Amino acid sequence: MTVRIGILGYGNLGKGVELAIRQNDDMELAAVYTRRDPATVKIATEGVAVRTVADLDTGNEPIDVLIICGGSATDLPEQTPKYAALYNVVDSFDTHARIPEHFANVNAAATGANNVALISCGWDPGLFSLNRLFGNCFIPEGKDYTFWGKGISQGHSDALRRIPGVADAKQYTIPVPEALEAARSGQNPELTTRQKHTRECWVVLEEGADPEAIREQIVTMPNYFDEYDVTVNFISQEELDRDHAAMPHGGFVLRSGQMASGDTSVIEYSLKLDSNPNFTSSVLVSYARAVARLAAEGSTGAKTVFDIAPAYLSPFDGDYLRAHML
Amino acid sequence: MTVRIGILGYGNLGKGVELAIRQNDDMELAAVYTRRDPATVKIATEGVAVRTVADLDTGNEPIDVLIICGGSATDLPEQTPKYAALYNVVDSFDTHARIPEHFANVNAAATGANNVALISCGWDPGLFSLNRLFGNCFIPEGKDYTFWGKGISQGHSDALRRIPGVADAKQYTIPVPEALEAARSGQNPELTTRQKHTRECWVVLEEGADPEAIREQIVTMPNYFDEYDVTVNFISQEELDRDHAAMPHGGFVLRSGQMASGDTSVIEYSLKLDSNPNFTSSVLVSYARAVARLAAEGSTGAKTVFDIAPAYLSPFDGDYLRAHML
Repeated sequence: MTVRIGILGYGNLGKGVELAIRQNDDMELAAVYTRRDPATVKIATEGVAVRTVADLDTGNEPIDVLIICGGSATDLPEQTPKYAALYNVVDSFDTHARIPEHFANVNAAATGANNVALISCGWDPGLFSLNRLFGNCFIPEGKDYTFWGKGISQGHSDALRRIPGVADAKQYTIPVPEALEAARSGQNPELTTRQKHTRECWVVLEEGADPEAIREQIVTMPNYFDEYDVTVNFISQEELDRDHAAMPHGGFVLRSGQMASGDTSVIEYSLKLDSNPNFTSSVLVSYARAVARLAAEGSTGAKTVFDIAPAYLSPFDGDYLRAHML
Repeated sequence: MTVRIGILGYGNLGKGVELAIRQNDDMELAAVYTRRDPATVKIATEGVAVRTVADLDTGNEPIDVLIICGGSATDLPEQTPKYAALYNVVDSFDTHARIPEHFANVNAAATGANNVALISCGWDPGLFSLNRLFGNCFIPEGKDYTFWGKGISQGHSDALRRIPGVADAKQYTIPVPEALEAARSGQNPELTTRQKHTRECWVVLEEGADPEAIREQIVTMPNYFDEYDVTVNFISQEELDRDHAAMPHGGFVLRSGQMASGDTSVIEYSLKLDSNPNFTSSVLVSYARAVARLAAEGSTGAKTVFDIAPAYLSPFDGDYLRAHML
């Protein structure tokens, strides 16, 4: 079975999905859908159409799964329910607090149309979520730790760029090595926000801006920076473009606790990614395979990574998986 | 729903399952089944019967899932198909090369009886297998690394004890730190058997045995030791009992490779376990919950961890999991 993928939105994530499909022989890119004028969007794959988002409205596009590559703030809450009523879909909705509401909306749309809709896929939410769930099952009495980084936080970079006088900026979230070691120790330490992560800012000033005033605004910014140890570095636009254009990320999920016997167990899962969007895309493509298979079996409704048996993700069949990976 | 668990075999693993049930409020121990005289087996749980293995033959024991805690060499190939024809079962069959054959035998028995039978559960095979599968999906072009330890290898300890002149022995498998770092680097190094692990032996000699002759026999033993750097320490039985009675284990599964874009991704999963059997038991109990639920839904046949959606493992429902762990 070849899975025909549609990509909605051609930003970093959409471009990553396009590339990830090339590493999966049983998947093919059917079309890219854009809100821009399709004539202005040049994609990396020859012979594949760029179409307008309005073309999706018929529900008749020749795709098995639509991977929706929009943003969580405004795009996905609208797009995913809309297109789940027309196609099988996958999204990477990552506003943790709004997941229950998003799930309910998407589930109503997908169930009514007999489609499968996987929400909140990627690595967090996604693979990190799986490891939180597994950890809580296997170590029922314990503590969870999630560390992010070292990596670029889009939200914190955006917050820096909204400060008047800041021309451009990137922010790295960095786990504190001592906190990571403490979590690994199995001693179940209590760790504060400040103890777990530091934040490193690379800021390009507009002409005439006062660096000390801006530094003060950054380190006192509520929610984003005030609870952290923050370093602020001022550099030129050329330096920012040269040294901070990549999108690395990653992190750690740990669960530690005591078995009923009193013995300690520690589970650790980590990712080290040169490119956050390219790895996330690869996860989305694997889960799109699972969605196509579940839909072919007659499954319907909204799903999360918790609902997908791992074998559905793989291009290999059960015999192969048992012989080679079990 | 309360899941009533039967335990077949009351060794380290069976005892661990008994304890693990105490950390799961929705599970209860129904009975322990033994091949010994039940009157001679004292279990840790008051008010629960120890029964003879023959009592299982009716198929009428009041249990939802039987966790079979026998050995992979001779017990499980016989027991799991036999009891899968009578009950839902879970085993921890870990002879990797014979898994396809075991699966086929168990599947025939379970399917014919409309039972669910999960084989090869635990951490390797089991959780490590899941991470091999996930890693191969998300990084299709890459390399796998599995490291074991630091921990007691039962098979290697047994091999030492079979040497004439050896009264008792324990063997630790130890990952080589430099090899682990190389695997983490994302450079996809080729690592030989000798480069990946060292083996550390703690040996009690029988009176009059020649230590140098026994050391030579150990380090040249084919399959077990000849391809490794081995250290052999001779100690007294008292020292062995005092310092090497615990059963720690653990290990690392890594997958590293390049996305289609050329960016490198590294996934690492690791376990650090004070007690191998007690953690393994906790994994078996979580999967027994999944087996009970699958059976209640009408599923039948042999399964592996690849076939179980993660949500089935948790005592919490979908709403809770999405709100708290996604």
